[in-house]
Amino acid sequence: MKEKFNTLPPSGFHEFSPAGERLRHQWIDVIRTSFERFGFYPLYTPLVEREENLLAKGGNPKEVYRLQRIHEDAEDQSHSGMALRFDHTVPLALYVARHLNEIAFPLRRYAIGPVFRGERAQKGRFRQFDQCDIDVIGFEKLSFENDALMPAIIIEIFESLKIGDFVVRINNRKLLLGLFEQVGVAPENIKTVLDIVDDKEKVPEDVFVSRLGEYGLTPESIKILTDFFAHTGEANQVLVAIKDTAGNDTFREGVEEMTQVLDALEAMNVPKNRYRLDLSIARGLDYYTSTVYETRLIGHEYLGSICSGGRYDDLGYKFTGKPLPGVGISIGLTRLLPQLIEAGMVQCPSVSPARALLIGVDDAGRAAALALGQELRTQGIAVENYVEAKKIQKQFEYAEKVGIAFCLILGAQEVTDNTVQVRNMHTGESTTVPRTEVMGHL
Amino acid sequence: MKEKFNTLPPSGFHEFSPAGERLRHQWIDVIRTSFERFGFYPLYTPLVEREENLLAKGGNPKEVYRLQRIHEDAEDQSHSGMALRFDHTVPLALYVARHLNEIAFPLRRYAIGPVFRGERAQKGRFRQFDQCDIDVIGFEKLSFENDALMPAIIIEIFESLKIGDFVVRINNRKLLLGLFEQVGVAPENIKTVLDIVDDKEKVPEDVFVSRLGEYGLTPESIKILTDFFAHTGEANQVLVAIKDTAGNDTFREGVEEMTQVLDALEAMNVPKNRYRLDLSIARGLDYYTSTVYETRLIGHEYLGSICSGGRYDDLGYKFTGKPLPGVGISIGLTRLLPQLIEAGMVQCPSVSPARALLIGVDDAGRAAALALGQELRTQGIAVENYVEAKKIQKQFEYAEKVGIAFCLILGAQEVTDNTVQVRNMHTGESTTVPRTEVMGHL
Repeated sequence: MKEKFNTLPPSGFHEFSPAGERLRHQWIDVIRTSFERFGFYPLYTPLVEREENLLAKGGNPKEVYRLQRIHEDAEDQSHSGMALRFDHTVPLALYVARHLNEIAFPLRRYAIGPVFRGERAQKGRFRQFDQCDIDVIGFEKLSFENDALMPAIIIEIFESLKIGDFVVRINNRKLLLGLFEQVGVAPENIKTVLDIVDDKEKVPEDVFVSRLGEYGLTPESIKILTDFFAHTGEANQVLVAIKDTAGNDTFREGVEEMTQVLDALEAMNVPKNRYRLDLSIARGLDYYTSTVYETRLIGHEYLGSICSGGRYDDLGYKFTGKPLPGVGISIGLTRLLPQLIEAGMVQCPSVSPARALLIGVDDAGRAAALALGQELRTQGIAVENYVEAKKIQKQFEYAEKVGIAFCLILGAQEVTDNTVQVRNMHTGESTTVPRTEVMGHL
Repeated sequence: MKEKFNTLPPSGFHEFSPAGERLRHQWIDVIRTSFERFGFYPLYTPLVEREENLLAKGGNPKEVYRLQRIHEDAEDQSHSGMALRFDHTVPLALYVARHLNEIAFPLRRYAIGPVFRGERAQKGRFRQFDQCDIDVIGFEKLSFENDALMPAIIIEIFESLKIGDFVVRINNRKLLLGLFEQVGVAPENIKTVLDIVDDKEKVPEDVFVSRLGEYGLTPESIKILTDFFAHTGEANQVLVAIKDTAGNDTFREGVEEMTQVLDALEAMNVPKNRYRLDLSIARGLDYYTSTVYETRLIGHEYLGSICSGGRYDDLGYKFTGKPLPGVGISIGLTRLLPQLIEAGMVQCPSVSPARALLIGVDDAGRAAALALGQELRTQGIAVENYVEAKKIQKQFEYAEKVGIAFCLILGAQEVTDNTVQVRNMHTGESTTVPRTEVMGHL
């Protein structure tokens, strides 16, 4: 008797439909190809790291999953203190620490794979999700032209994925911090004011202004801020317009770094409609120290940023003992893809990768179908042999259900004539073609 | 100050070198392409399943890793009872149970990814390792021609991977069990005698005979067994030679099933030197019920089986409530690949996927290098821009270290002349070529 089991995945863990999973593969292939085309290479580190290392670099102990064998045995203590990674950055920092003297800097690595966070389960929040990351890590220094390569890669990827119109928003946190210094935001309010700025586009202008007023800013200061954020246009023009807004070192550094980024983007002939300088984006103050990125799908802003990242001063000094600046981006595939499928913005492929289903209707046909299947595969065509004893109608139904476009039918007559019946499953039409010409009909 | 952290992966978890990881990617691409060419499609299930489901179907509680947040909080109990998968089969059975009414049978799925076992740490044993599995699952019945497709796939994969000479050994457990019945192996000794048979090739013939003698077999019975296992030659000839050794139903079924498998292999024109009927292989008695496979690298038998599998009667009746027979194979990539690299049997690619490193020697050259880099990428060539302010010799060293074959050098002179210096990093030779002809020199 069937026993009572709950066969659903645990809360916060999910499956993809077979067609969705094939789309996920296609996406990962595109993303990986783009990463490699820019000279990034993969580093493989395990999904499991030492607990103390994960906690030392931002791991939230309420979200990090520790491993424990269901039945511990006292004589083997080698399983304690291990936990699942929650991002790709801590494993990268640990890798760099292990191989500091062998690595050719700047290190250009990519990582595509699952990370785990023990979050409260809710729609669209996953406890296991794929992140696709690239990072360039410099030894002590790192040119800001790397910060220009990131939007170029994002643009190549999302153009290849054909998901519609999008724009990469670039900013530099130093512009914001320098501006705040200029207008007198108190140090203890910086984090809150940054959040207000980051949320600017979500609220009407008067709400934005009144929120700023709560943090002791004068009307003149607020005017400087609202004027600053009102700039629009091509990135270079915006930068020229705001470059003298503040006179402190932080702001000047921000202008200089952003100039290098925009000059490099221009040198690369990256299309100007694909990126802009958005002075209001802030992102993760705690980690990013300079350039930051977001990517928005035009007309689908509710999706949030579909690819984000930025520059940081310190990959992991506590592990490496060296100041290693880096810049990177991350695509959160597991959140993005189901949303795009649901919104009808991307199409899933067929379930089966096979182009044709080979059907033998009698003993001679079955043997011939096995032979033809192998021949077609040798020529690089994915085909499936249906080898169960079922009525031909059932075999057609199978082909339709898994999305196979053609059925190739063989029986004693076809074997004698050296032909194949080719049935187009879309139109339902069958034609008899010489065996040697089957390839051309698929 | 650098703090004291042990940055090594936990015991039993491992990293790949960057070049090794690129080889692993290449292998997975080959394996996946072969799987898909035979019409298999991927199912994505999470790495985490319900503990009770894993334990219900073969999970060893001393080896299954349970998840536990480092800091539990009492108000969220939704994280309990979850554990890491230890194979791809239990998740498949659970998937099938969830989707029994939607699945088009026979289900042909592949799974490539990590599984976890809390084994005692020792060389060559990993606690996280990649398995590449395919399985065909039938609804109530499943033709034995599927059992012939498995060796065909194994052969396609290992020929594509160019790892040298190999052979797929095929057997049917019913042949062994029928034979044991015939010669009077007591039911309580079957498991032990199967193990003795499975180990036959590891010991001299006289040791084999004396081991069999310990289980109450008469000299006549032992003679039948040794004669049986002495058969060699082409698979079909061996089958003809042994087909009347025993007269019971089990043995006859084994002969009949194996006949179908070998006939189908012959129909597919699978090269006969690539497979053989090896009457002594037994493999996992508990799970496999009929056809079994092993794959050996000729001259490297110490590696053990590099791809194994077999047929089973019951994918997971306790989950599905239906008799679902299946046949599948599995490649243990994580154990195999480092062994082949170490033995020099496969070559790792370069660390960097980039074909060329673009170097700008002055401002004009740097801008031109950024532009040329994008152009080459658009044409599908992987290239890297070196954008750090380093002496050119350091940039060459970088290219050598990550295995980039060419450096493309641009300065004001090249920009004026519309040329590029192409330096072959292998020969050290440089040539100046028109910018439009760079592609042809890579």
